[in-house]
Amino acid sequence: MSSSDIFIGETIGTAILILLGAGVVAAVVLKASKARNAGWLAITFGWGFAVLTAVYISAPLSGAHLNPAVTLGIAIKDNDWSNVPTYFAGQLLGAMIGAALAWVAYYGQFHAHLTDREIVGGPGTQSTKAVEAREAQAGPVLGVFSTGPEIRNVAMNLATEIIGTFVLVLAVLTQGLNDNGNGLGTLGALITALVVVGIGLSLGGPTGYAINPARDLGPRIVHALLPLPNKGGSDWGYAWIPVVGPLIGAAIAGGLYKLAFV
Amino acid sequence: MSSSDIFIGETIGTAILILLGAGVVAAVVLKASKARNAGWLAITFGWGFAVLTAVYISAPLSGAHLNPAVTLGIAIKDNDWSNVPTYFAGQLLGAMIGAALAWVAYYGQFHAHLTDREIVGGPGTQSTKAVEAREAQAGPVLGVFSTGPEIRNVAMNLATEIIGTFVLVLAVLTQGLNDNGNGLGTLGALITALVVVGIGLSLGGPTGYAINPARDLGPRIVHALLPLPNKGGSDWGYAWIPVVGPLIGAAIAGGLYKLAFV
Amino acid sequence: MSSSDIFIGETIGTAILILLGAGVVAAVVLKASKARNAGWLAITFGWGFAVLTAVYISAPLSGAHLNPAVTLGIAIKDNDWSNVPTYFAGQLLGAMIGAALAWVAYYGQFHAHLTDREIVGGPGTQSTKAVEAREAQAGPVLGVFSTGPEIRNVAMNLATEIIGTFVLVLAVLTQGLNDNGNGLGTLGALITALVVVGIGLSLGGPTGYAINPARDLGPRIVHALLPLPNKGGSDWGYAWIPVVGPLIGAAIAGGLYKLAFV
Amino acid sequence: MSSSDIFIGETIGTAILILLGAGVVAAVVLKASKARNAGWLAITFGWGFAVLTAVYISAPLSGAHLNPAVTLGIAIKDNDWSNVPTYFAGQLLGAMIGAALAWVAYYGQFHAHLTDREIVGGPGTQSTKAVEAREAQAGPVLGVFSTGPEIRNVAMNLATEIIGTFVLVLAVLTQGLNDNGNGLGTLGALITALVVVGIGLSLGGPTGYAINPARDLGPRIVHALLPLPNKGGSDWGYAWIPVVGPLIGAAIAGGLYKLAFV
Repeated sequence: MSSSDIFIGETIGTAILILLGAGVVAAVVLKASKARNAGWLAITFGWGFAVLTAVYISAPLSGAHLNPAVTLGIAIKDNDWSNVPTYFAGQLLGAMIGAALAWVAYYGQFHAHLTDREIVGGPGTQSTKAVEAREAQAGPVLGVFSTGPEIRNVAMNLATEIIGTFVLVLAVLTQGLNDNGNGLGTLGALITALVVVGIGLSLGGPTGYAINPARDLGPRIVHALLPLPNKGGSDWGYAWIPVVGPLIGAAIAGGLYKLAFV
Repeated sequence: MSSSDIFIGETIGTAILILLGAGVVAAVVLKASKARNAGWLAITFGWGFAVLTAVYISAPLSGAHLNPAVTLGIAIKDNDWSNVPTYFAGQLLGAMIGAALAWVAYYGQFHAHLTDREIVGGPGTQSTKAVEAREAQAGPVLGVFSTGPEIRNVAMNLATEIIGTFVLVLAVLTQGLNDNGNGLGTLGALITALVVVGIGLSLGGPTGYAINPARDLGPRIVHALLPLPNKGGSDWGYAWIPVVGPLIGAAIAGGLYKLAFV
Repeated sequence: MSSSDIFIGETIGTAILILLGAGVVAAVVLKASKARNAGWLAITFGWGFAVLTAVYISAPLSGAHLNPAVTLGIAIKDNDWSNVPTYFAGQLLGAMIGAALAWVAYYGQFHAHLTDREIVGGPGTQSTKAVEAREAQAGPVLGVFSTGPEIRNVAMNLATEIIGTFVLVLAVLTQGLNDNGNGLGTLGALITALVVVGIGLSLGGPTGYAINPARDLGPRIVHALLPLPNKGGSDWGYAWIPVVGPLIGAAIAGGLYKLAFV
Repeated sequence: MSSSDIFIGETIGTAILILLGAGVVAAVVLKASKARNAGWLAITFGWGFAVLTAVYISAPLSGAHLNPAVTLGIAIKDNDWSNVPTYFAGQLLGAMIGAALAWVAYYGQFHAHLTDREIVGGPGTQSTKAVEAREAQAGPVLGVFSTGPEIRNVAMNLATEIIGTFVLVLAVLTQGLNDNGNGLGTLGALITALVVVGIGLSLGGPTGYAINPARDLGPRIVHALLPLPNKGGSDWGYAWIPVVGPLIGAAIAGGLYKLAFV
């Protein structure tokens, strides 16, 4: 694979991943969406099929990492770091494009959600109640873009992200061992997607399962840049955890792979 | 594939697609259905497995486009427009047959829903309340046949349909790149079906994801023709958006494919 | 395949189909079940994975028809009626065994449901309220075994069962066209299972989608024979519809297959 | 496969199985989880995808039994008992590691759930109400680790576990008959996972479907050892049923396989 194919594939693939992933959260949490309150199962299957779609589309170009943690795990496994910066760059750019596209697709819903007069009061209202209501509305909107913990604790949140990403990356690394040359590529994309549904269902409860630094950081930057009314802060204090945790989890998976599977 | 195989395959396939797709909406929204209020996840999985069933049955005959947007994207990719009118004709006819079959399968439910005396009052009742109630009942019934937006806005609704169809058609076009000659045909049908579930979950919130001109137009015509009591209008003012939006999305996907994937 | 393999395969396979299919309904509707009120999506996926499990286990022995309608459709397609009686006999026997096994697995739940003193009053209570309550409880219990319509109407109920079975059998018949010699057998089992989930979601609302004469008749006989307290009648007046409707649907599918797909 | 590969593969695989399986129950039942009350469908799909992930990762090392009942069934089928102790040891150790990892991933949720002052009162509170509330909270926490019946009855609970495991092991044993040398390995992992979803949906209602002695016993030991506040007892009186029942079910499946499928 050429450098430009890798960059283009990762950009397109990660953009589709985040468009669909942020999209399903928007669908479930925002006002004026047909999917409102469709629940956690809808969110986890939505993210899983986002992985499926994005991997399927970008695999022929870049091998479809779409996740710096996956790129790190594969680099450790293969001891080949030459394309890592290209992968990372495409992933971050793609994640930002995807978040922006999700904002376009749900433009009306974001606006309706953040400016609902019944909830936030008229323009310029500064009463305590209106300010509190705006904050209550801003939380789900940030949640469309980036993850946040239910209980905020550095050690606990890091541990959860490390464990979740460890499982994901170990599954990706063993794909080669399951491949017998009969088109596992595409079947592997399906398996990986369902593994992501599983990680979401099983390990998503505490922190919302970033398990992908680009998936969290790219959309958080876009959240900070977008002209969303009453959007509140982008919770930068938490932003390093879904970057560092997944990279640690991937490193552990890569190390275990080399110890036990080779 | 011969012209007649294409026409017959697209007619049968699109009929089954719409029978099952309209069917799942009828199952979830109409009175006297065991599936009533089964929710958005049921609707999105139902449409996805409708795609699976219809593609599986019609693929041996016509290649299973079942969607003018898919036909357009493939025509752009292959630069071959010879069979496009045959595909379009079969798709529109099939969509109309499928909508009529869904009406037959749910005949009692449609009737129970639209004529419930508790809701619409006795025959001929013209009180404001009865008229309003009939309109409230007519909305879900039109929703069995065709899509409609939560927030009505030409630019926003077009954008959402363009983005959703872009993802679908790009996934269909890359199928050839994922195929390695080992029966991806059928595995590809499964992937496409799950991609459609994903698009529904992630991008269906604002407009109900037509992402297929025939899927929306054919059943809307049938809604206008059927002798449903108290059915209300067929919302023709919106009808062009789920036709034009998907075609634009398919054209963009076809163009990106030729730029980035060849 | 030998006659005895066919008979044994169909008996084991249909027993597992009905054990799991009746089981999921018991799980969702009976008292003292962890799955109580898990909803329509649970029922439809449960029946689909029942098909998957049963087909997977019995395919090596009998080809896994597990449904007289499927056997009829294949006999029409191949114009070979020699094994039809063997298939039918195994299917009916298997369905009865499966229903009995579901009763064993949920023995406590059936008993708790049908004898709940809060609901049905003490033993021998004959007040109108107690009798009505028993009938309300007996309905879901019959529903574990056999199907019943939401709106009772011979023409409508037959039509719904014909349409649903038509889709199922047409999908089964086209499997051979999708097979390219690379193990579709097993992938085909998965596709068929998801088609059944789809038919359930899309066409199950009016009658509960028997789409299989053995699936409905066998368990209904077992319901009539089992010593369930307060069980009420077995609704024999309806019993012919889920037998005749599916056979008509299968015949139409077989005919269309010979017309359009050969 | 070498003994050490078997031991390492079963340990890693079963650890991932229980991490994800216990994880999804924690996600759905514990306080301060984003997935709280996501329902029975989330639990059954979560356990199924736990099987998928664990089998996929460990299959290249140990063939991925991950369940003493599966090991027993295969030993009966092949009449080869040489590796059984190695499999059992890896499975039990892995199950304990997995349960401990689930506790780490949900550390904050366990603590929040068991020490919620609103529910259990302040530290040391001994009022009847506080004690009852603690017991009510302790039940779901034990349920994260091990199974328990809705209606406690030795014969009924054994029967349900026997039947469920019989279906699982028979499906695993027939995998070889469905394999045609084209990569069913991985497709077989997916089928097995969906069979487990199906068994959960259909037969999980009465006892919570252990269908795996290691899955129940390992986490129960960990529950007894962990320093969880207010955790209550580990219900050792029930502990033998999800060990013995699955082994009986597996033996019956192995016997039927040798009778009918060879």
